[in-house]
Amino acid sequence: MVQFSTRLEQASEATQSLVCVGLDPDASRMPVDDVFEFNRAIVDATKDLVCAYKPNAAFYEALGLPGLDAMARTVAYIHETAPQAVVIGDVKRGDIGPSGQSYAKASFEVWGFDAVTVNAWGGLDSVEPFISDGELGIFVWCRGSNPGSADIQDLMVDTPQGKIPLYQHLAGSCREWNTAQNVGLVVGATYPDQLEAVRNICPDMPILIPGVGAQGGDLESAVRLGTDNRGRLAVISSSRGIIYASSGRDFAERARAEAAAMRLKINETLTIEGLGWP
Amino acid sequence: MVQFSTRLEQASEATQSLVCVGLDPDASRMPVDDVFEFNRAIVDATKDLVCAYKPNAAFYEALGLPGLDAMARTVAYIHETAPQAVVIGDVKRGDIGPSGQSYAKASFEVWGFDAVTVNAWGGLDSVEPFISDGELGIFVWCRGSNPGSADIQDLMVDTPQGKIPLYQHLAGSCREWNTAQNVGLVVGATYPDQLEAVRNICPDMPILIPGVGAQGGDLESAVRLGTDNRGRLAVISSSRGIIYASSGRDFAERARAEAAAMRLKINETLTIEGLGWP
Repeated sequence: MVQFSTRLEQASEATQSLVCVGLDPDASRMPVDDVFEFNRAIVDATKDLVCAYKPNAAFYEALGLPGLDAMARTVAYIHETAPQAVVIGDVKRGDIGPSGQSYAKASFEVWGFDAVTVNAWGGLDSVEPFISDGELGIFVWCRGSNPGSADIQDLMVDTPQGKIPLYQHLAGSCREWNTAQNVGLVVGATYPDQLEAVRNICPDMPILIPGVGAQGGDLESAVRLGTDNRGRLAVISSSRGIIYASSGRDFAERARAEAAAMRLKINETLTIEGLGWP
Repeated sequence: MVQFSTRLEQASEATQSLVCVGLDPDASRMPVDDVFEFNRAIVDATKDLVCAYKPNAAFYEALGLPGLDAMARTVAYIHETAPQAVVIGDVKRGDIGPSGQSYAKASFEVWGFDAVTVNAWGGLDSVEPFISDGELGIFVWCRGSNPGSADIQDLMVDTPQGKIPLYQHLAGSCREWNTAQNVGLVVGATYPDQLEAVRNICPDMPILIPGVGAQGGDLESAVRLGTDNRGRLAVISSSRGIIYASSGRDFAERARAEAAAMRLKINETLTIEGLGWP
């Protein structure tokens, strides 16, 4: 058995990459009609450049059953054609009791994800169903990439360690819940200070970092602040910036170019920090 | 146009009922194999006794595409056969930007729900996509029915109004977000003090109250503390206690008996309080 965090690291080593491609189908921007065919072309064009793919369930669900079918087929195709890649379902699910168990079953058994993003509002009860198998992982939505995340996540809360922002308290809880080495966090690249704070609280846990590219997060600071002290265990995700780099027939080729440029810039930053790949 | 909260009240008036039946298919407990047929029998047997149905998406998703198809067909069947009933999708979704918009589209356009439960961890940004149409409603997951809800929801936070539990702060935010009269809250029946606190903060907003029945919440206190000052705008939900009242062929008949008993006890409590139906 390989623990999830080790699995993730192996995926990065195999491709010398911290890049994750978000697969967010948007009919108004896709140059081909078929969601699965679109994803397949993106995966074929990028599979040697990335450690992970991140299909966002919201976009598939909005397309109804055919969309969800395309999501399941996409996950299966990635497992088949890029077996080293970690497939992260961006589902942001979370519920308690039998409902929570059902979401975990759906995530791992129905859709076939290796990991999912989880919303921990329900506390450990809502996280536990997802982490019983150490080979499968979660990324708890800790600090969002949007301004409105501050509404709840930045509130100052009383803890035994004093008064701290709620997202930092959650990060500390995630560290406690991480007994099977399969818990990570989601922190947006758009808030470097928060990213640094979470990395300090969770020095050896994976962090999924959305928000570079279309949302404007700075890639260099995501690398410097988001990786662990060996320059690993960050999953830096771009969706629209890669998959919609072109709206023409060269979309897959352009996606490859964008993913390659992102990987190169990340690896240059790692090298400058003395943490490049061996 | 009828605002969601008015729509909900009309559904209660039409059936003189605050009862909501949770439709949570569990293959190990259902006496018939087909999820849609099971739900149809439950709906046929209870439609004159309840103001709302609440399919929980987790259970359908765990059954894959056929499960989700059964969910969509169930919602359509309720609209057709019990047009007064409000159909609440217990989806606990929440995300930001285009993802949040996609979940709202899925909830209302794909699945056809009248309202959904929402997880507001992402702040107003994650709530806004669901509340642009005043005819469609949300119930923000405020205080859960599980002990672990305390992990996050009961943390004491600093606010301009002083130090209060996080779930109370969220209730106050929901009150501010309720400009279109279509925002409600979810508060578990298992924590009467919290239910009372939320009702005080949001005197005229709908509250969805799960946790009576199988989870042990007290029905009488749910009525006394959860309704508004007219004895209305509470949606008291039981799932397993109703739909699995019998595992035999009489399941629909027994579900009807349980729903009728629950409705009667609620209405007796309302009458004692001087708030019975006209």
